[in-house]
Order: sequence, then structure tokens, then C-alpha cells
Amino acid sequence: MIKIAIVGYGNLGRACERIAHNSGDFETVGIFTRRNPDTVKSDFGTPVYSQRDIESFKDETDVACICTGSANDVTDLGIRLAKNFNTVDSFDTHAKMSAYFEQMDNTAKQSGKLCFVGMGWDPGLFSLMRGLCEGILPFADTQTFWGRGVSQGHSEAIRRIEGVVDAKQYTVPKDEALRLAREGKGGSLKVRDKHLRECFVVAEEDADKAEIERKIVSMPDYFEPYDTVVHFIDEEEFKSRHSAMPHAGFVLRSGEINGARCNIEFSLKLDSNPDFTAAVLMAYAKANANLAIAGETGAKSILDIPASALLGKDRSANVGKFV
Amino acid sequence: MIKIAIVGYGNLGRACERIAHNSGDFETVGIFTRRNPDTVKSDFGTPVYSQRDIESFKDETDVACICTGSANDVTDLGIRLAKNFNTVDSFDTHAKMSAYFEQMDNTAKQSGKLCFVGMGWDPGLFSLMRGLCEGILPFADTQTFWGRGVSQGHSEAIRRIEGVVDAKQYTVPKDEALRLAREGKGGSLKVRDKHLRECFVVAEEDADKAEIERKIVSMPDYFEPYDTVVHFIDEEEFKSRHSAMPHAGFVLRSGEINGARCNIEFSLKLDSNPDFTAAVLMAYAKANANLAIAGETGAKSILDIPASALLGKDRSANVGKFV
Repeated sequence: MIKIAIVGYGNLGRACERIAHNSGDFETVGIFTRRNPDTVKSDFGTPVYSQRDIESFKDETDVACICTGSANDVTDLGIRLAKNFNTVDSFDTHAKMSAYFEQMDNTAKQSGKLCFVGMGWDPGLFSLMRGLCEGILPFADTQTFWGRGVSQGHSEAIRRIEGVVDAKQYTVPKDEALRLAREGKGGSLKVRDKHLRECFVVAEEDADKAEIERKIVSMPDYFEPYDTVVHFIDEEEFKSRHSAMPHAGFVLRSGEINGARCNIEFSLKLDSNPDFTAAVLMAYAKANANLAIAGETGAKSILDIPASALLGKDRSANVGKFV
Repeated sequence: MIKIAIVGYGNLGRACERIAHNSGDFETVGIFTRRNPDTVKSDFGTPVYSQRDIESFKDETDVACICTGSANDVTDLGIRLAKNFNTVDSFDTHAKMSAYFEQMDNTAKQSGKLCFVGMGWDPGLFSLMRGLCEGILPFADTQTFWGRGVSQGHSEAIRRIEGVVDAKQYTVPKDEALRLAREGKGGSLKVRDKHLRECFVVAEEDADKAEIERKIVSMPDYFEPYDTVVHFIDEEEFKSRHSAMPHAGFVLRSGEINGARCNIEFSLKLDSNPDFTAAVLMAYAKANANLAIAGETGAKSILDIPASALLGKDRSANVGKFV
């Protein structure tokens, strides 16, 4: 049994706890929350502690699963925890990934711990596919598409607008762009060409809807660079049709080898983004425990971890079953 | 520069040589053929030697790329070469994979060499996907489909029938089976449900076509378990429309995590099967050289090799670029 600490108890932390509960591989040492632990109740009776106290559980924990929501929390927590724990996280700010990876590598090498950075589906499985595709077809074009699915960051950005009661934003890949990417012509696609942003918004009764729509579509970085469609709906429709957190995505590589065209395509279609992210995080928590026992230390990205670390230890049986 | 020996000079060996020639990463020590080397001419001026003499090149070779056609040749050669060379091969008899892997592991551990077994797309990339998918979604169903593409083994089987001048067999996945697999209902699919075998045959002028067709569709293992369609065409149409060796395939995993449905899909679409297989073999030849320098020995399947071994050595740069 792999003893895990769940650090943060939002959608991702809850999903990790449920996976641990349903699997025969894990034992949950505790949930570690930033909130007052007396106000947090585990879905499965796991003890809840303050994040401040986590270091006192270092000797009884194999892997700390970092499940906090915002990116800043992850980096600060990651570096703190890497001093005393093997960790897995799903840090997802692509632009800061390389710097965070180096900090984690330095910290974990000093402490003799093993820390996996960016374990989800993007970053995560999609990163692995991008690396693998580049290694196999060096002369080709890789394109990543996301959706159709809910972007939590974009949904939150809409909810912060005055007069908005609730909102969900769906990222939608454009068919024409997918077609071009599959033909190896993805390199010429602009941001606006690849994805549409579709928003479902519940507004306050007396809100100025035209003004809300204007604020959404002109929002820098989030919406301005995209074609954005805004639908105002009532609360009932919102609850019945937009409560889930589905997502999907594609990594496409298209190019030539010896003059012959090759297309590689990896795609996901997920009814629940947080539950699948948790599945990846927990699979790599198991891999972390396997490799830590084997003496590995430092930070690793998903590119550094062989698939066999996720599987049983009998290599010959794995060859028979999967190869 | 990675110094490679190309062992066997059919479609695969020629494709590997072309990749080596066009890449800045490889230097070709020689082509090693079973034929009389005087009768074999390299496409790129690489010296051609007899396979019998390969051991005298052991000190100047980093990796031997085993490119011989038939499965028996690969196992015998593999075990012989593992005594003196790091090797990569695309051994593809799934049923014997596990036994061959163990033999190669024992041999390579004794000799201190590093040997990669089963490097192509299936076995190879598809094996990696099957393992990865199992690790991430333990409760789900994996289905592999091949096609639409040319099966060389099935084409050869037809060509051995009396009265047949030439033949190509296309393996075609059935749409309904793909649909069921994507819904997680692939477990109930029978062999006949998944693939159709479509044959294009050039017969001798006075041949009994009905008898040829009967022999094809009733051939045990090759065709009898499948729905098979036979088209007789003339030599001109055969040459103009069936000279290429395209292939394709899918690995689908469909299941649930925490009650939420997840679909993972990996697919390839290839204008030339041997050229893409060579691309995978050469990518892993590079990985082999990288890991052998790092001191790794024994046999490895694609499950054991991290994607980073295919890429540049700057881990932090790889994180920035791919993660």
C-alpha cells in the first residue's frame, strides 16, 4: 500500500481521495487543507489536518499529492514540500514550467526526494505525446487543440464581471483548423483560427447584458484574441445543462519521413476533467513510489518517466501483456 | 554522431539508411546482408558486408539496427548480436515477444550491452499506449485496430496460391466495431467483428478464379476467421493503384474513473509502413546510444524507455518546449 497525503481538498483533491478509496493500491494518511480543518469533512472519513502541520506526517507518507487549485499555491507548496516529501503535482502554467522544474530539481536533489512536476493531461499526457512525436518525426508540425470542454479559468474570469451570477466557458476547436493540422498545415494557424470560445452566462435580472457581453469579448488575453460567442440563459437551464466539467483535446503531429506522409494523433474525451486529471496524478503517484524505492531523486517531468513505472514490476509479464 | 550498423537490407533497412543519411545524428558503419555483398548496392554509397563478418565491426559500432524481414531471423540474429552489440529491433511476433525479451535480457546483461526489443509501431508505439492507458485507467477496455492498410504477411499468403501472379491484402477496421470500442463495449467484439480483409488479386490468364477465391477465404488463421472480400484486377490497375504500402491503426481505451467516462485514443495514418517503422527504429537507436553511454544494460521494451531518451539532453529545455 502506498501511503499518500492529499494536499488541498477541492475538485482535484476529492477526486484523488475517491480513486485512492476505490483502488487497492493506496492508503490515505490525511487531507491537508488551508482552511480550518474542523470545517472540512472528508467524503470517505479520511482525517483532515491543517496544511501548516503536514511536516509532522513526513515519516508516515510515501507521496504527497499536491491538489491545490491556483498556480501560485502549487509552486510555493511544491518547493516547501520537496524538502521533506516525494511529491506529484499538476502545475499547469506552461510559461513558468521550466523555472519551476529547475527549482524543484534543486530542492529535491538536496533533500533526496523524488518530485514529479506537471502530471495531468495538459501538461501531462499531452506533453508526453508532444515529446514522443518530436523524437520520432523530427521534421513535422505538432498542433495541440483543446475542447470541446469547460475552461475553469475562463469561466471564473466571466464570473468576476459585475452583473454576472454564474458562467461556463467552453473552448471549442475549429473543424477547419483540425483539418489543416492533419494535413501538416498547422504551422500557419493563428490563435483565432484554432479555437472558438463559447460562453453561457446567467446575468442578474436588471443587468446590462450588452455591457456584460462587451466586457467578455474584449477581455485581453482571455477572450480578445479569439472569436467569442456569448449566450445568456436562465439559472434553471444553467444548472441542468452546464453543471458538469467535461473536456477534450487533441495532439496532432503531421509530417513526412523519407517523403512519405505520417499522421500521429492522440486525443482525449472526458466527461469529467478533474476526475481524469486525478487519474493521471494517482497513476504517477504510484510510479513515484516505485521509482523512489528504487533510489531515484530530483525532479522529473512526464518525459523522464517510463510507462513501466505505472505498471506491475514483472517486466516480462508486461511485455507479454502490452507489447 | 551515432555509428550504426544496418543489418538486413530490405524495405526496412533501406528506409533506415535513408533516415540516417538525411539526419545529422547518424553515421552508417555498413550494411550487413545475408546475400552475397557483391550483389547488393547501397542507395547512398554505404559499404556492404556479409552478415557473417559483422562481429569484426563491433568496436566501431554504437548500435546495430536489426532490419531483417522474418521473425525467425530476428530472434536468432538478435541473440547473436546482443553478445557484442547494442541493438534495436522491430521483432513483431506478439506471441513470442515475452520469451524473446527474456533471452535478450539474459544475453545483454552478460555482455554488458543494451538491447531494445520490439521497436516499431505495433509492437512499439501501440504497445506503449496500451501500457500507459492501463496504468492511468485501470478499469477500462483497450482495443487495438489495424488499417486501412496493407498486411505484408497476408499479401504473401495469397501470392503463394497457384495461379496468383500478384496480390495485396488490405486490413480494414469495421466502423461499427470502432464505434462500440469508443463506447467501452469493445470487450464483446469477436475477431470477425473488428476487421474486414480486402484482397486485390492478379490471376494468371487461364487460372480458376473461383478456386483461388475459395482458397483465400478458407485459409486457416489468415482469412477463415474474417469476412474477406476478393477483387480480381489486371496487372496495370494493380501497379497503378496498389504499389504503395500504406497502413494505419488505432489504440482505443474507454472506461470510467469515479463514474465519469473517459476515452483515450491514439491513431496513426501512414503513407508508408516501412518508412514509419524505420522512423521509430531510428529514434530508439538514438535513445539506445544515449542510455548505453549512461551505463544501462540488458533488454528493454518500449515500456521501459522514457521519452526524454529520444530528445536532447537539456531536461529543463525539454520541459519548456514540450511540457
